[in-house]
Amino acid sequence: MMFTKEEYQNRFQRIKDELKNYEHDAVIISNEDNIYWLSGFFGFATFRPLFLVVHKDIDEPFFITPKLEYEAALESTWISDISFYIEWKEKGAFLDIISLLKSKIEEKKLSFSKIFVETATMPAYLYNSLKQNFKGIEMDNDLILRKIRMIKSPEEIMIMRKVAQVVIAEVEAATKIARIGVEEWQISMAAQNAGYEKAAELLQNYPLMTPLFAGVQMLQSGSRSHIVHGRATTKKIQENDVIMMCFCEYAQFAGYRMGFTRQLIAGIPTPEFTDVFNIAKQSHDAALTQIKPGVTGAELDIIARKVIVEAGYGEYITHRTGRGVGASYVEGPEVKEGDAIALQPGMIITVEPGIYVPGVGGARIEDTVLITENGYEILTKFPDELKRI
Amino acid sequence: MMFTKEEYQNRFQRIKDELKNYEHDAVIISNEDNIYWLSGFFGFATFRPLFLVVHKDIDEPFFITPKLEYEAALESTWISDISFYIEWKEKGAFLDIISLLKSKIEEKKLSFSKIFVETATMPAYLYNSLKQNFKGIEMDNDLILRKIRMIKSPEEIMIMRKVAQVVIAEVEAATKIARIGVEEWQISMAAQNAGYEKAAELLQNYPLMTPLFAGVQMLQSGSRSHIVHGRATTKKIQENDVIMMCFCEYAQFAGYRMGFTRQLIAGIPTPEFTDVFNIAKQSHDAALTQIKPGVTGAELDIIARKVIVEAGYGEYITHRTGRGVGASYVEGPEVKEGDAIALQPGMIITVEPGIYVPGVGGARIEDTVLITENGYEILTKFPDELKRI
Repeated sequence: MMFTKEEYQNRFQRIKDELKNYEHDAVIISNEDNIYWLSGFFGFATFRPLFLVVHKDIDEPFFITPKLEYEAALESTWISDISFYIEWKEKGAFLDIISLLKSKIEEKKLSFSKIFVETATMPAYLYNSLKQNFKGIEMDNDLILRKIRMIKSPEEIMIMRKVAQVVIAEVEAATKIARIGVEEWQISMAAQNAGYEKAAELLQNYPLMTPLFAGVQMLQSGSRSHIVHGRATTKKIQENDVIMMCFCEYAQFAGYRMGFTRQLIAGIPTPEFTDVFNIAKQSHDAALTQIKPGVTGAELDIIARKVIVEAGYGEYITHRTGRGVGASYVEGPEVKEGDAIALQPGMIITVEPGIYVPGVGGARIEDTVLITENGYEILTKFPDELKRI
Repeated sequence: MMFTKEEYQNRFQRIKDELKNYEHDAVIISNEDNIYWLSGFFGFATFRPLFLVVHKDIDEPFFITPKLEYEAALESTWISDISFYIEWKEKGAFLDIISLLKSKIEEKKLSFSKIFVETATMPAYLYNSLKQNFKGIEMDNDLILRKIRMIKSPEEIMIMRKVAQVVIAEVEAATKIARIGVEEWQISMAAQNAGYEKAAELLQNYPLMTPLFAGVQMLQSGSRSHIVHGRATTKKIQENDVIMMCFCEYAQFAGYRMGFTRQLIAGIPTPEFTDVFNIAKQSHDAALTQIKPGVTGAELDIIARKVIVEAGYGEYITHRTGRGVGASYVEGPEVKEGDAIALQPGMIITVEPGIYVPGVGGARIEDTVLITENGYEILTKFPDELKRI
């Protein structure tokens, strides 16, 4: 486990405390990031569902997995009550997750009339099956986990500092290899390998954690640099190419993620691109310097957007200014229109306003910041100029 | 695009033909693998939904994306009708996918009273929103896409042969680097890099495709070799360690996947492990040699399972014998209890019976086979003995 047992128990207690604010009995956790956050277990269940159940009247969550994942769960979680279902008929076995859940609830004599489920990610078939099998149950969105996870614990902040070390190793490796004639994917591979190396170094005392991560660095150059989520291809870097490198999928350590984007120029930028880049940078800085407790994501979004709109590039905005980040790529609060949550110390958000102009190029500088008592601290401390290679 | 426009049009026509067998008007495709299969577009929309709509009365699907993915979709799909929604208030813009869908249906004057949606993967909130907004609509599971995708086209079979080339480059690289003292993750990294190199070589004439893939090779050694989905850690390979290497997440090319598992031994296996390995091999071969058109997945599963149960290891079976594979990790038909679909030429399945004994080790030899007119052809042609390193 990456965290102490006390850390996990605190997380469990925070969910129970939050449940008291509602008239609900329990929350069924099915989202894989939420399961990891609470249990330490990160599975690859290939469409077989897992349920982690937090009930107001129990002292520990209970965990239901497919048999396939049972041994992996046993070794990676602090939770002692783990049971499994199987996928073929066998005497005494539970054939599906719903029948096993019913049995556990009866065995523990638990009330089960109003529960939260995670409708943002739970597949519709599973939701429908729960509705059919538990009459009278009221289903809600994943309000509880989203709310609790916004404020990071000291242990989580320590991990996020390590994610920053991993991603800085990646950008340094990418910058070092990037030059005219190299293929885009080779830059990504160099970044990924450097990330693995750094993560392995940081994990030498954690025998069950992997330094590997699943993800594809988004990297696109030249005439495709305005594609937001482009993937690195076999295209060779050419003279004067803009190279957009988003490390968000590679910025990982121990299941935690971070937002991070930097850009390179393989020569001389055009005056039009220089203009766009400078405006993106101004937008980024304008939002950043206003970050402090009490400000909302919606307010920061307006500040960042205003810079771009007033410069005449409003139509080339394609996404919000930022997002919460931690054990998920996107979590609360979000830096976008409508998010009225006041920032608090311990929250971690990205600041990533972007401008994407076909024929000119895309510009985005993305950082991840920790909200502090008086303002903010940049976790992704790395030069943010348009680096010439 | 990886495939010809004709190939995509044929896929579209197959969906329309299949719709005629039902009284449904349309299918809303939201699953990312299905979207890729039909459109050529593979997005990273981070929780923003995409809809690809195939309607019985139109000559081409229409595509709805978040603005963020619009430019990437434009460059990667054969579909001409692409529209986007945005996530903030703006004059003339659609604020969410449902309102844009409504507008498209009105604009095209389409009937929309019975539609298929993909409940196996569609999040419950989106399903609920569709139900609320389209009164009288009947929702079903993704029967249509699953059924059609089972039979691979000649172009798909060609791609699957390339996936095999990628994965064989990976296992060769892994075997070459694996030795006592090397850390598990270093073996995975070597495999991944070899896969990228091979994929890049095969993609030199496809300018918009990426040779990178997202996934973590499952690799576990020694006392953890019985964990089905273990991840490679910083543990060093020790003398006599069994090394279980599952390449399923690394066995990728151009969005297509393949099942593939091999094992190494860093010295001398124990007699108990040798026994388990031989039984797994017998189970694998028993199923394999019975594969031909007309046989069902359920029948193959019984054949494979019988070998293991009769040898006394039944309780150490944790998963089905195999699965369909192609543009998804798991697709139809499945080699498991209850799957009554008769195999047909053009289907591609895995054969992967496994035995996982704590304290002894896990044994699984996994191959991917193409069903042919008279039997089968192994696509993952690679020696399957317990390779000594």
